[in-house]
Amino acid sequence: MYRGLVEELAQKNDSRILLAVIDGLGDISIEELGGKTPLEAAVTPEMDRLAAGGALGVHIPVARGITPGSGPAHLGLFGYDPVLYQVGRGVLAALGVGFELKYGDLAARINFCTLDDKGIVTDRRAGRITTEKCVELVGMLADIRVEGVETFVVPVKQHRACVVFRGDDQSDDIQDTDPGLVGHRPVPVEGSDKSRRVVREFLRKAEEILKGLHPANFILLRGFALHKEFPSIEERFGLTAAAVALYPMYRGVAGLAGMNVVKCDPENLSGQAKAVKKALDDGHDFIFLHHKPADSAGEDGNIQAKIRAIEEFDRALPSFLDSRFAVVCITGDHSTPCPMKLHSWHSVPVLIHGGPRRWGYSSAFSEKQAICGAMGTFRAIDIMPLLLASAGKLAKFGA
Amino acid sequence: MYRGLVEELAQKNDSRILLAVIDGLGDISIEELGGKTPLEAAVTPEMDRLAAGGALGVHIPVARGITPGSGPAHLGLFGYDPVLYQVGRGVLAALGVGFELKYGDLAARINFCTLDDKGIVTDRRAGRITTEKCVELVGMLADIRVEGVETFVVPVKQHRACVVFRGDDQSDDIQDTDPGLVGHRPVPVEGSDKSRRVVREFLRKAEEILKGLHPANFILLRGFALHKEFPSIEERFGLTAAAVALYPMYRGVAGLAGMNVVKCDPENLSGQAKAVKKALDDGHDFIFLHHKPADSAGEDGNIQAKIRAIEEFDRALPSFLDSRFAVVCITGDHSTPCPMKLHSWHSVPVLIHGGPRRWGYSSAFSEKQAICGAMGTFRAIDIMPLLLASAGKLAKFGA
Repeated sequence: MYRGLVEELAQKNDSRILLAVIDGLGDISIEELGGKTPLEAAVTPEMDRLAAGGALGVHIPVARGITPGSGPAHLGLFGYDPVLYQVGRGVLAALGVGFELKYGDLAARINFCTLDDKGIVTDRRAGRITTEKCVELVGMLADIRVEGVETFVVPVKQHRACVVFRGDDQSDDIQDTDPGLVGHRPVPVEGSDKSRRVVREFLRKAEEILKGLHPANFILLRGFALHKEFPSIEERFGLTAAAVALYPMYRGVAGLAGMNVVKCDPENLSGQAKAVKKALDDGHDFIFLHHKPADSAGEDGNIQAKIRAIEEFDRALPSFLDSRFAVVCITGDHSTPCPMKLHSWHSVPVLIHGGPRRWGYSSAFSEKQAICGAMGTFRAIDIMPLLLASAGKLAKFGA
Repeated sequence: MYRGLVEELAQKNDSRILLAVIDGLGDISIEELGGKTPLEAAVTPEMDRLAAGGALGVHIPVARGITPGSGPAHLGLFGYDPVLYQVGRGVLAALGVGFELKYGDLAARINFCTLDDKGIVTDRRAGRITTEKCVELVGMLADIRVEGVETFVVPVKQHRACVVFRGDDQSDDIQDTDPGLVGHRPVPVEGSDKSRRVVREFLRKAEEILKGLHPANFILLRGFALHKEFPSIEERFGLTAAAVALYPMYRGVAGLAGMNVVKCDPENLSGQAKAVKKALDDGHDFIFLHHKPADSAGEDGNIQAKIRAIEEFDRALPSFLDSRFAVVCITGDHSTPCPMKLHSWHSVPVLIHGGPRRWGYSSAFSEKQAICGAMGTFRAIDIMPLLLASAGKLAKFGA
């Protein structure tokens, strides 16, 4: 609401905060569940206990009616107004695989694709080649040299990779070369500014290298984005933050906010629980914990899988509730209603436990109870100030 | 939200508005009260009756998570965005004792203090000298002349006074001379701009005058603030407003907003009731009534005293409910939870009775009922538009 006010008032202390995000948590009333949402239908004794002793509310991810992508939704939760801090997909993809971007780098997502002999795209994903194949092809592209920039090509997963151009005076005003549909040629990069020349040259050399291979014989570029200066959560709020997330996208956004993206071994909830403890041992006072499966189930329209994903988180919850946390927040980044199979604009339940609060308003963690919870309705970017305040990390404004 | 919109639509009529502020009203769930707040535990038949026939809601004093001081919190209630209208303590102190500040005046708070013979502060409040002694010492300082400005010294209470410098080209970029701790020297005022020279000269002459006295043998200056142009509540909303408040701070903020700060005799609730009637007789159509003890009890952590302060206000309420009021609003400026002994960021219950409204949502005035009241959650600066609208003082926007 007021740029800079929270930063001005932020103060360090020894309190630790857990922000647990169940991705795509919110949902809508579902006929098959008698009008309940998956969260309402799920058996969640641990979250219900926290709800009874904590304060509930709902957050609006960006603004009323606005459906956010995962990047903006998470930035909001971290206290970054997603409309002011717009981050391109290319940057998120590079950060997501742990590539150390520098300010001024130009990043884009790569899809390996299949062209026919007339240069028409016949498969935008080259038959979803294996990740091993992707690594091999990326190794071939890694040798490309383009004048005026350093070039980095990094594998992501299956047919996905990303490219980073490092050099002065770059611009991200470049359209996707992915035509979006098969049966079309890749969109050519026109224009004479430095970045367009660089990208054109890179594509020409990639074409030479991949020509004759099958099924991946060319690349499509999407989501060109400059990595612009981004204030860290430490600079802004004085938090030493760790991200305990398994998926590249979320690791990427957390890295963008300056969180230390930690290793989880094994890559599941129990590995995440161990990572949380270790991050606390290592002196972090803010932990972002990310649980993906609820969102994936919502995107699949799989109601029972979404219920199971929520229940699975609930069962694991005690393993995350380290006694060193003064404040625990559980929420989603956005709603992913099963009947829509998409992200949506609907509000998302928020639970805050710990710190001075009004309790006794709720008996369970649910959309229905959250809307009449003690905290009311607020924007996602208000969550961070509420957590800081609850942990005693915000000084008084004015006398 | 939209600057200037309310001002543009404001229109005068004969309706009168009462804004009654129970300072620090909001609280959190308290274990000893079985999870109730002091407002919920208090017996308040008068406010409950108004709640049943009125509309409830909660206000966010500044923004989510932000804990306001008394100044910003009251400015919000008066419809002034406290982040846009930041007012220094010196200005509030001078206005609080009824000093007629002019725009451009530089004001600071004075503490009489005790220095030892090495110039070290041994008591930052000079043993809390009596107000009579303060008046006597202020009389001695009143003779100080400093080139380039007119100087005014005004007593406040006990060891507290304030000083105002009147002249051109002043700046309030001056640090407190109060070291904040005993055992240190007063902080020197360095620098060569006009205000720094003026303050240094004033301090030098004050030192000469007070030297040798006991216990108050010097002064500490705090909260330097320029009195900047401040649009009045009359200019903005067309209201002829009176402030019925007993404490200097609140009288000061009300004065800043251009309210007529009226005399209360005796200085208690019955004196305030008489002052309300007289202010109406004198043609005011907006009365700000301030009740302090709930906040003081909250800051002391005294749950029973806070309950008593609220009940005391409730018993006195009929004496304020003059039939000439078309709209009555009861709220707090912020929460002062007893378990915290501090102001806090929590929302504050609001009751509006009178004017066209939705009623029958509530049976009592409480945090719990207010969060589910007919008006929902809004910012403190939205209260004034709601009161103006309820009193028929806002024209339609657009055709």
